[in-house]
Amino acid sequence: MSLSSLRICSSIQFCRQSLITSSSRELYKLTKNIRHISTIVESRTTVFRGLSNDIVIAQVRNLHISSVNRMAQISEEKIGLVPIEETRRFMTDCFLKSKCSPENAKAMADLLAEADYRGHFSHGMNRLEMYINDLHKNSTDGNVIPEVLKESPATAWVDGKNGLGAVVGNFCMDLAIKKAKEVGVGVVTARRSNHYGIAGWYTMRAMHEGLIGMSGTNTSPLMTPTRSMEAGLGTNPLSFAAPADNGDSFVLDMATTAVAVGKIEIQRRKGEPIPHGWAHDSKGNLTTDAGVAFESACLAPLGGSEITSGYKGYGLGAMIEVLCGILSGSLFSNKVRKWTHFGSDAEADLGQFFIAIDPSCFAPGFTGRLSEMNDILRNLTPVDPEKPVLLAGDPEKNHMKKVDSDGGVRYTPNQIQTCTNLSQRLDVSPIKFIN
Amino acid sequence: MSLSSLRICSSIQFCRQSLITSSSRELYKLTKNIRHISTIVESRTTVFRGLSNDIVIAQVRNLHISSVNRMAQISEEKIGLVPIEETRRFMTDCFLKSKCSPENAKAMADLLAEADYRGHFSHGMNRLEMYINDLHKNSTDGNVIPEVLKESPATAWVDGKNGLGAVVGNFCMDLAIKKAKEVGVGVVTARRSNHYGIAGWYTMRAMHEGLIGMSGTNTSPLMTPTRSMEAGLGTNPLSFAAPADNGDSFVLDMATTAVAVGKIEIQRRKGEPIPHGWAHDSKGNLTTDAGVAFESACLAPLGGSEITSGYKGYGLGAMIEVLCGILSGSLFSNKVRKWTHFGSDAEADLGQFFIAIDPSCFAPGFTGRLSEMNDILRNLTPVDPEKPVLLAGDPEKNHMKKVDSDGGVRYTPNQIQTCTNLSQRLDVSPIKFIN
Repeated sequence: MSLSSLRICSSIQFCRQSLITSSSRELYKLTKNIRHISTIVESRTTVFRGLSNDIVIAQVRNLHISSVNRMAQISEEKIGLVPIEETRRFMTDCFLKSKCSPENAKAMADLLAEADYRGHFSHGMNRLEMYINDLHKNSTDGNVIPEVLKESPATAWVDGKNGLGAVVGNFCMDLAIKKAKEVGVGVVTARRSNHYGIAGWYTMRAMHEGLIGMSGTNTSPLMTPTRSMEAGLGTNPLSFAAPADNGDSFVLDMATTAVAVGKIEIQRRKGEPIPHGWAHDSKGNLTTDAGVAFESACLAPLGGSEITSGYKGYGLGAMIEVLCGILSGSLFSNKVRKWTHFGSDAEADLGQFFIAIDPSCFAPGFTGRLSEMNDILRNLTPVDPEKPVLLAGDPEKNHMKKVDSDGGVRYTPNQIQTCTNLSQRLDVSPIKFIN
Repeated sequence: MSLSSLRICSSIQFCRQSLITSSSRELYKLTKNIRHISTIVESRTTVFRGLSNDIVIAQVRNLHISSVNRMAQISEEKIGLVPIEETRRFMTDCFLKSKCSPENAKAMADLLAEADYRGHFSHGMNRLEMYINDLHKNSTDGNVIPEVLKESPATAWVDGKNGLGAVVGNFCMDLAIKKAKEVGVGVVTARRSNHYGIAGWYTMRAMHEGLIGMSGTNTSPLMTPTRSMEAGLGTNPLSFAAPADNGDSFVLDMATTAVAVGKIEIQRRKGEPIPHGWAHDSKGNLTTDAGVAFESACLAPLGGSEITSGYKGYGLGAMIEVLCGILSGSLFSNKVRKWTHFGSDAEADLGQFFIAIDPSCFAPGFTGRLSEMNDILRNLTPVDPEKPVLLAGDPEKNHMKKVDSDGGVRYTPNQIQTCTNLSQRLDVSPIKFIN
């Protein structure tokens, strides 16, 4: 058996027995054909069951370092077309086998499937294993129902009781919607929550009820405030959704950093630099070296450097923190646990806010005016006729159309392998492809 | 008499008889000493009273073009220390002589004086003449009281009745505060409003009541959405203010464009380029030529180009528009009148929103936690020990300390001359300096 075969099989063994690290995930990009990998895995994995995890981890790390350059030449080709319903079914089954009530399992599967449907793969099934691991080591409680701690006609303060993000988020936004329908507005904050996926899931929940939705969450510290050489806030996303006529809408869903870590990782894998304004090195200076940026994990706020008004992105991130951690009494700022919390069984204690506003309380004809604004913006003269001006939510709408047309979502070999591992680990029926 | 003396006197004549253009304002920066200019003006102006405005305007424009390079060498030195109370007194008197009720005159003077106190000179007395002109040509009504058109326990829709921005804004935020104290939150939108100065004025009004304040306004189209070669939205500012312990606070007040037009104008005057990411040329491409950027008046959204996530700043600007123009039923997007509306007597019909949230409806100890967050952020290790990490509102706090220490605000010769002109035009006691 060749060394590379040994390493591939070792890494798969590691994935089955332990948490998946980004290093081990990358191994699967060494080939473009997941079915070929699967064959190797199935035939050879048993040979290495006896290896200790430490040895496997060391091997995986070595391979990780040496393979970065090779991976740079590997395309991001996706294979494995999976209908959204099947994605949802598979994830529901995984959560059901991970100490979750049926309602809570469904809530999480719906959330993650929607992220993939909208093209936000980083926040979809990509995170399934992280959630599953948190449930198995009891750092998240899959059975709880959140509890209202304090309430007024237009507000509520909620204890998420360390429940799953979607469970807490749905509970809070539904409460905000109820209040908006009663008194015009509802503002709800949650403490003791967990990663709640795409913020847009919750704001669209309000939008589907004919309301304006707003939501945000704090996250692990990754953003370097202007002038700072260390992270002080998370990527702290904000979402805002509003309904227009004939099913059209405005759906903003954005981190308050310039980009997410994932974009830097892609550049690093390609061996290409990152644009000036995405991230800082460990000394707090903007860097265009993707490797340096990935190591420092110090994202620039939206706007980049001070001269291009990065302090505004920093200010927006801090505003989200005030509405999340400070208002709800959860952890906040650099007190939130690090993103790479493998091994920790402490609860995340994230803070989140949810706002619903009933537009019928204001000028009549809201949806018509929003449609008109959407038309104006989409029809502005583009710099490049091939690239029309888009509205917040348009890239997602385009992606959903493609998924509907294709009959499913195309996942990467990496993602499919993770699912294969999970299906074996949890004794869940494997995910099925159309082709 | 030399040609330059002729030109200086012509421009002053023009200022007295007509609207001040940026061209004529710049003339006063040709000297560092306003008292010297005043002497020339007083002794020679009468000679040119007979000149037609057209000739004077042509002369001023020629001088403007030829003097740009000379002005590049002129410092931005400020003279004329004026106590804030005197600034307020002078502006109140000007509004009283411009068809305003005493309450409305005071509201506007308080707003503009606060902007100067906080160091936002572009939004302070600098705009006095624009407001005065709008009042005299009846494009704004200085006497009206806004009217509530629709109300629910947590919301109100208000008709600003084309009143002054501060009058509409104070009315709306006070209503939002009242509702927040009753049911936890208040959301108020206004249609038919006017320029309302610094958005932070209204959010701090809520903050001084122990509440969280949020506010935004739409503005004249100046921002070029991502991929567009024409402006589609305004600078659409957002403010967010919250109280911490011992008088500390978090006060964000920012345009959703990378910078305001004023910053580009300063670079143009200095003959220096602008950073990549501030503005577009008339073809929609980012430019570093300050002259080109000033002519196109196409500001880049916060974030700059598409690769550095300028679409997020564009999305934020559109979000503000939804809460302002779309929710209130005012003008919106590129239907708002242009910034340079000289001669137009159409009302602005701007839309604005005002939100107040009572933090005592959520986790106890809000102000303490905010103080803790402020401490964490301010004490992050700075890249340059000489430049500590700041919090939103800190630059303004520093400016206010300096004003208190100096005993007043230092204005530019340009600003003082405008005040001198106004005092004569409106028969108002001239503004008094300490030195």
